[in-house]
Amino acid sequence: MIRVDLEHIRRQLCQLADIGKTSKGVSHLAYSEDFFRANKYVADLMRQAGMTVRTSRVGNVIGTYPGKTKRRIVIGSHIDSVVDGGMFDGCLGVIAGIEAVRTLRENGITPEHTLDIASFAEEEGLVIAGLVGSRAYCGLPPTPIMRERMGKYGFTEQDFEEAAAEEGPLDYSLELHIEQGGVLENRGMDIGVVSAIIAIKRYIVEFSGVANHAGTTPMNLRDDALVKAARFIRCVQKTVIETDPEMVGTVGRMEVFPNAMNTIPGKVSLTLELRALREESITAVHQRLMREFENEIASCHMTMEQPSYHMDSEVREAIHQACGKLGLSAMDMSSGAGHDSMSLAQVTKAGMLFVPSVKGVSHSWEEKTHWRDVANGADALLQTFCILDKNLTAK
Amino acid sequence: MIRVDLEHIRRQLCQLADIGKTSKGVSHLAYSEDFFRANKYVADLMRQAGMTVRTSRVGNVIGTYPGKTKRRIVIGSHIDSVVDGGMFDGCLGVIAGIEAVRTLRENGITPEHTLDIASFAEEEGLVIAGLVGSRAYCGLPPTPIMRERMGKYGFTEQDFEEAAAEEGPLDYSLELHIEQGGVLENRGMDIGVVSAIIAIKRYIVEFSGVANHAGTTPMNLRDDALVKAARFIRCVQKTVIETDPEMVGTVGRMEVFPNAMNTIPGKVSLTLELRALREESITAVHQRLMREFENEIASCHMTMEQPSYHMDSEVREAIHQACGKLGLSAMDMSSGAGHDSMSLAQVTKAGMLFVPSVKGVSHSWEEKTHWRDVANGADALLQTFCILDKNLTAK
Repeated sequence: MIRVDLEHIRRQLCQLADIGKTSKGVSHLAYSEDFFRANKYVADLMRQAGMTVRTSRVGNVIGTYPGKTKRRIVIGSHIDSVVDGGMFDGCLGVIAGIEAVRTLRENGITPEHTLDIASFAEEEGLVIAGLVGSRAYCGLPPTPIMRERMGKYGFTEQDFEEAAAEEGPLDYSLELHIEQGGVLENRGMDIGVVSAIIAIKRYIVEFSGVANHAGTTPMNLRDDALVKAARFIRCVQKTVIETDPEMVGTVGRMEVFPNAMNTIPGKVSLTLELRALREESITAVHQRLMREFENEIASCHMTMEQPSYHMDSEVREAIHQACGKLGLSAMDMSSGAGHDSMSLAQVTKAGMLFVPSVKGVSHSWEEKTHWRDVANGADALLQTFCILDKNLTAK
Repeated sequence: MIRVDLEHIRRQLCQLADIGKTSKGVSHLAYSEDFFRANKYVADLMRQAGMTVRTSRVGNVIGTYPGKTKRRIVIGSHIDSVVDGGMFDGCLGVIAGIEAVRTLRENGITPEHTLDIASFAEEEGLVIAGLVGSRAYCGLPPTPIMRERMGKYGFTEQDFEEAAAEEGPLDYSLELHIEQGGVLENRGMDIGVVSAIIAIKRYIVEFSGVANHAGTTPMNLRDDALVKAARFIRCVQKTVIETDPEMVGTVGRMEVFPNAMNTIPGKVSLTLELRALREESITAVHQRLMREFENEIASCHMTMEQPSYHMDSEVREAIHQACGKLGLSAMDMSSGAGHDSMSLAQVTKAGMLFVPSVKGVSHSWEEKTHWRDVANGADALLQTFCILDKNLTAK
């Protein structure tokens, strides 16, 4: 069985992290100077691995390794990052994809079908909006906000269309990514086989009370917006756990008015984010909270809504087979974070592999994946590709 | 029985409120141009009422109405205000004092003892520190922060000393003030007889957790600082009510880090303010909270501490007598807010009268006291003075 060379991956990830390195992490903010330097580095690696490279105005870098047919399998992720992020989020999937091609070529293997290695632009969505590059590659239209902002970053709707995958049907997609949570580490598993990327709804919830003198207003005459909000925060926790053991709910942002030491809070505004595989769970939690706090919530409006995206069962099965061949433990799990595979799932049979994140930390310089897990993930990615490449021929 | 003329008080309070009027309230911030204009207005009223007027560099305006002896009773409050404050907080006590003198004089009454009407500077403490004027009048030393900042407002430590009350012992002090809370209105009482100004302790409390991805971190692997803080806020409420039904506790200010919609809060910093008549209640609540949240509080440090100040029982009795004579209902109550009487209580027998505040609102243009309550308060102030003036002679 062919295997990737971890030393290549380690060196390339480190060199990629040297681009845009700050004292607090790595910054390859999409369309920044460092992003384009990172893109150039990736394009060079692709060429060295024997691929032809196509760059596009949207910021994608696509390396193609031709197979015996023009049917196409894509392995992709992103190299853009948050500000002061880690070195694995996104980069791992791109570098492991390039290493897969290098390994195939070193072993004299020409795949049955054409393999694209994709480095998608602006996955993080801090600049224009999330998934610009993968949407363009998949031939999906730009979202209204992308349409509005793309001009500022030097590309038009026509450029967006021209970034779509080249000739030949797209049969499968694969993405290797760090988990960004602590489930795999916690359970001692090698590989997560993503069943779906979960749905998200975000709300801004406001509580109002009466701002008043904190010294002269007795406890029983108070209308304290923060006390209401505190009860809400505790109730979000409880309701989420009771409704669906696999969903999550977070109050991440909060503002108190007038926010003075000696004034009873008269208004609190906070964000509620609910994520679940089953969209009914989100609806159920939202309804229960609205009912429970009917008299306390001054307003609640949704600011974002994203459906869940299910990964393809055939691809999931192939990942499990690959793990079996490699002697790696694997578990099905949903992804709480968004990924380029959300775009791919809309146009092809998509699959994702996760490797453990130490302490589940990401979007931070503390983000870490053990090198043995990096090697496992890259080997599983390569093996899965080989299985799918064979499956496709058998069809 | 002599009575004040409400029309005088109403007109003068309105004219005083015209100075520094903004679209959102009245601003007589200490040592501002409008503060000095208001001081001049007050000094003119005092002269018209037959007093000799002494102004001092600290910003006090003291009108003296000589009695048959040089023993002295002072009626005082302040005319400085917060930014965009109301028209009653402080001003009522000064204007009602002046009206008391005018009424005495109109009725041909020369008091037994000398009466000072004091308009104290910088009670609010937004510019230098609270109680500058009353401390100086009482011959108390400036606090370290006053010493540090006073130069910027044009007065020295010598000026501070020279602002002390003139010759003759200070036997009693009286202050009429709006309640700034909703107790009197709520109970339908005319006059509050202040038993004490309550003690205050302020703390900054920090909770720490682990900031992490709000999508990928399952509920059971989270360490959410905001959830801890929410439990604390609810517990403050409960513990305060259980410990001492007359004390208050407030979390007024709160900051969440990193305060992002999609990140589990890693740190929360909040203020805890505890006020109680009995300082043991503050200690008890603080200890109970520290014990209950031993594992959750990352740090807690005190930023301010102020003891309680008790009003004199003889003066309180005189206020009750006055109310009895006037047919006004009166109740003993503590003051949750600080007042100039905290300085006076340190050097003389001090007493305070409260009149109801509509909805308990203050430090706001919404601050309101019904005119009949203004008249009641001013009459009670005048009658109390007459009783104390007689008491002193009997001694």
